[in-house]
Formats: sequence, structure tokens, C-alpha cells
Amino acid sequence: MKKTVYTKAGQVGLVEVERPHIEAPDDAIIRIVRTCVCGSDLWSYRNPDIEAGHQNSGHEAIGIVEEIGEAITTVKPGDFVIAPFTHGCGECDACRAGYDGTCDRHIGTNWSDGVQAEYMRFEYANWALVKIPGQPSDYTEAMLKSLLTLADVMPTGYHAARVANVQKGDKVVVIGDGAVGQCAVIAAKMRGASQIVLMSRHQDRQQMALESGATAVVAERGEEGIAKVREILGGGADAALECVGTAAAVDQALGVLHNGGRMGFVGVPHYNNRALGSTFAQNISVAGGAASVTTYDKQVLLKAVLDGDINPGRVFTTSYKLEDINQAYKDMDERKSIKSMIVFD
Amino acid sequence: MKKTVYTKAGQVGLVEVERPHIEAPDDAIIRIVRTCVCGSDLWSYRNPDIEAGHQNSGHEAIGIVEEIGEAITTVKPGDFVIAPFTHGCGECDACRAGYDGTCDRHIGTNWSDGVQAEYMRFEYANWALVKIPGQPSDYTEAMLKSLLTLADVMPTGYHAARVANVQKGDKVVVIGDGAVGQCAVIAAKMRGASQIVLMSRHQDRQQMALESGATAVVAERGEEGIAKVREILGGGADAALECVGTAAAVDQALGVLHNGGRMGFVGVPHYNNRALGSTFAQNISVAGGAASVTTYDKQVLLKAVLDGDINPGRVFTTSYKLEDINQAYKDMDERKSIKSMIVFD
Repeated sequence: MKKTVYTKAGQVGLVEVERPHIEAPDDAIIRIVRTCVCGSDLWSYRNPDIEAGHQNSGHEAIGIVEEIGEAITTVKPGDFVIAPFTHGCGECDACRAGYDGTCDRHIGTNWSDGVQAEYMRFEYANWALVKIPGQPSDYTEAMLKSLLTLADVMPTGYHAARVANVQKGDKVVVIGDGAVGQCAVIAAKMRGASQIVLMSRHQDRQQMALESGATAVVAERGEEGIAKVREILGGGADAALECVGTAAAVDQALGVLHNGGRMGFVGVPHYNNRALGSTFAQNISVAGGAASVTTYDKQVLLKAVLDGDINPGRVFTTSYKLEDINQAYKDMDERKSIKSMIVFD
Repeated sequence: MKKTVYTKAGQVGLVEVERPHIEAPDDAIIRIVRTCVCGSDLWSYRNPDIEAGHQNSGHEAIGIVEEIGEAITTVKPGDFVIAPFTHGCGECDACRAGYDGTCDRHIGTNWSDGVQAEYMRFEYANWALVKIPGQPSDYTEAMLKSLLTLADVMPTGYHAARVANVQKGDKVVVIGDGAVGQCAVIAAKMRGASQIVLMSRHQDRQQMALESGATAVVAERGEEGIAKVREILGGGADAALECVGTAAAVDQALGVLHNGGRMGFVGVPHYNNRALGSTFAQNISVAGGAASVTTYDKQVLLKAVLDGDINPGRVFTTSYKLEDINQAYKDMDERKSIKSMIVFD
């Protein structure tokens, strides 16, 4: 079969290779009906040191199941399927929490297989493959395009909106006007955002986003762009969807948020940040800051204390007069007290 | 009135100062009934360079309203109140999102006032003060202790659980066995966690947490501690509540989570991390990683595409035969195409 390889920096070409075959019981061989090029494929394409013959990094496909391993019960030869760019198992903690993109069991993506080719081997296929009703011939070309986005970019845009917890009425800013950014606009609208601002300098991309539900576009960047967004929204955004992966894009996202806002980032980090790098790899959300004392007290905590439902006061293991304040400090410093209380007459 | 000051490294003492008075219409003067020492006060206490006479950093109090500014409508002299360590306005985007700890308008905390004293001036009091029914004499000493925790440590522990989105059935790990960690255990139980593991090496603190709802304690740290937690939970945790503020504690928290887990961190960052430092100051949540393609496609996206509710396929602005794969890359690289699709016959 024909398969794409990198031939040199800035060039790809086709080679003839053996068709893949079933290697494990949970494998499926898929005849590819549509595949595509991802922005991330361009990293290798542009890499001046790429070795000739290096496998393509294509990882998005829809196709027809050609052959299945003996453990496969969910699809059969002839079925039309979406091949996700990852291989969730559907059973581990991560998959059950809805994070099959970073399944605890099946690390890695389809990249290893290079799906810009006539056929692909899809590993761990039983849970991960998504069946499409009917056959490709039942669909218009426009619909086939949309179905193909379901292998990566549309779920990736949706992921940004989901992890940023975009909800009804939210003011949302999308950083990045590429395919993922465009899909993030669609996702924000699906989840009920009331305002969606796309940061974009390209007229065709601005137009596409406006057709998908963006309510405004901002061409400016940096501080100027942040000011423009805040002017349009009448304040900071509730959620920022970072779909680029650069430090500048992260700064832009953090800059447009009001305090307490949420950043969902799906641009693969191309910046040197140990913390964000490691949380991205594990799909971990990170949040924190000063507590909302007034809100929590009024909403739930004061009542819980007064009703005797909770007893946080037990943290005060020692009490003192104000005159003995130094002892109060000293005992905490020496770990003789968990927390020292000062009592007034 | 008497007020605490730092007298030298490792020592505090009292000085006589003028009683505070109303300076702005939204001020309240509070006679303090109970105050306390915070773990964070020990930073100054231990600071070898502390200047003699430096104001105390106490910021937790309950007391009686003594005097109010003319703009105050919510409390009157004689009322018993909680004085939160922050001053939310109740009206800005951050406060309305339930993040009054980082109010967009009133930056800063009570620290500036040093409430280890007989009286305090509480700024921006109208929304932020929390009224307690009755008078101090209506309550037992144990209840007064619990009410005092509502000025900081209990809401702070609750914040960790809230921003980590702890919910019914979750497996939760608490890092830090001080007052905030103890309160985080209480908060995790309030929100329905099924398992709560406290990492602690001190028997009295372990015991306190077990009485508050912890289901297990782990004394080991580092890799050994992570392994022990995973053994107890039969896998990774859904949420980790970091209540210390050191790099080691953050590493511990990230280490016990399964992929897709959530870290809530309320330990004021005492580590050099630009990204976490800035998000903490703004109370911004940060989440991201590889998308859950299979989950989203099955749950919502495939149906939305097939029903024609969304049209993500418009991102494919160009189509090619596999033979023209190089052109497909080239057009994306030169931004002539948003996303290039490969069509098979």
C-alpha cells in the first residue's frame, strides 16, 4: 500500500510498504476513507534535521474496518468508524473520569502508525473505535469532513471548553484561529456561552468563526489585545481556551480572565514550563488561590458549624491570653500546638 | 489598646497603640473576641531580618461590631461577626463567580491591619462581614473555636476541595496535616468523598483527621508515600488537596492523582514557579491535556454532527489525493489552507 514519509525538510512523499496486519487480539485493520494533515505534522515537516524516510505523524482518520482481532466484539469488517488519535481502554480511573485521551493503561497515540496511508492498524480497538451509522456513500462530502474532525480537532476544541468548565451564559475567549481554535468556538457555543471572542488576525478565519458562533473577533495581540477583549466583554472573561501552545498564547489567555476565571489549554506546550508540562501530560487540572471566606461562610459553613455538623474548632489545640502571645507563637513554631487561639475576657 | 508586634526574630510582644477609628464610609471597627496565630505568621516570626516593632500579620478574628461607617447597612454596633481575612465586594466578576478571596476591586487582606490586638478596623465591611446569630456568651468555647476557623482556615480548606471539584464518591488525598489540611479533610467529607487519605507523620494530627472523616493516614513521603496511597486507594486519587505550599507538596499531590485528576492547592506557593504563582494570585484554574475523543464522540459530538447541529468540517478548506500529500502539507505550512484533507477513491 501507499504511505506518506518525510523525504527531507519541507517535503513529504509516498512509499510502497506492506499493508499492516493484525498483531494483537485487540487490533483492527482499517481501510482509510479520509485522513488529513494536522498543524502538529508541520513541526516535523519544518524540522531541518528530519531524516529521509521518517514515518508521517498523521493520526486522524475515518475508514472501513477491514479485519479484526479475536478480542474485538464492538465492530466487524465493513463497519464505518472514527479512529480517535488515542486509545482509551474505557475501564481505568482516567477513562471512567472521561479522560481517555490520557488513559492510564494505553499510553501514546496513533502517531506511531502514521495514518496518512491507505490502511492503518488501530491498537486497543475494542472500546476506542467509534462506529458511524451506515457507509461513507450515505454521506455528503461536507458531512464526511465533519465526521473526520471527530478523530481529533473537534474533540480537542471541545476538551478545552470542557476542562475550562464552560457553561451557560459564560463569556469565553478563544486564543488560536486554526482548526482547533475554530472547533473550540463551536464547543463554547454548544455549551451555552453567551459571548465568544476569537483572537485572530486573518479575515477568512475570523469569518469562519463568526459563522460558527463567535460574537466578536479581536485582531490585536498582547496588552492591546487584552484591553480590547475586556472592552468588548465589559470586564474579564469567565473562560479562556488556549489552542496554540506557546507562552505568548498562555499569557494572552491568563490576561483576559477575571480573577477566579478558568483556562482550558489544549495547545501542546511548546514552552519551557515544568508545572504546566507535567500537568498537561497527565491531563490534571490545577486550581487554587485565596479562599472565598464570605461566600462559603454564608452559603454553607456557618450553618454547618452552628448545626454541629462539622467541628473545625478542634484545630485550636491551645488557648492563651493576649499577654501570652509570644508563647502562642512559640508553641506553634515548636509544633506543640496545631493552632494557637487568643482569648479575650 | 494592646496590639502585638514583632520584637525580634523569634519573639513577639505587646505595645500600647491608639484604638483604630472609622476612616471610610465602608469601615467597621470590631472589638475582638477571639483571634489566633496562623502558620503563615510564623514566616515573619522566624525571619532573622524582621525589624523590631513590625506589625503582626494576624488576620483571623471574630468579634463585636463597635462602630460603623455611614455606608454600612448590613451590621450594626453590638452585632457578633466573623471578620474574613479578605474583603470581597460581592459585585465584581470574581465575587459573583464565588471568588471573593481575590475580589477584582479590593486587593489585599486584613494582614495590613494586624488583628492580634484588642480592636481592628475592617475595610469594605458592608458585604464582606458575616453576621453570627446572638452574642459570644450564647456559645460554648468549642463552638467559638469553630466560629473562629470561619475567618480563614476552614474556608481555605473548603476552597481546596471546591476548586478541585471534590464530589460524591471521590477518592481524595490531603497533603498537609496542619490546621488547613485538617479543615480540608472536613471539607472533603462534607462534599461526599468516599475515601480521604491524609499524609501525616504526627500521631496527634493523624488522630484528629481520623475523627474528622479521614479514612486512612500515610506517614511515608515521596515515592514511597505515593505508592502507599495508591495501594490504599487501589489506584490513583480523583482529587489531591495541597495545603502546604512547597514544591515537594505539589509533587506529592501530582504524584497521587490518576490521569485526569484534579489538584486544588491553597498552600501559598513558596516555590519558584512562574505559572503556578501567577494563577494562584488570580485564583485561576488551569486544565488541559489530550482530548477524550472516544468519550466526547460517543456522548455528544457524533450526534451533533449527524443532526447537523454543528459543522466542524468547515475547517477543511482544501482537499487532495494521497498522491498530492506534499501539496497538502505545503498549503498548510504557507497558511493557504486551514486544514488539508486527503480523499481516497
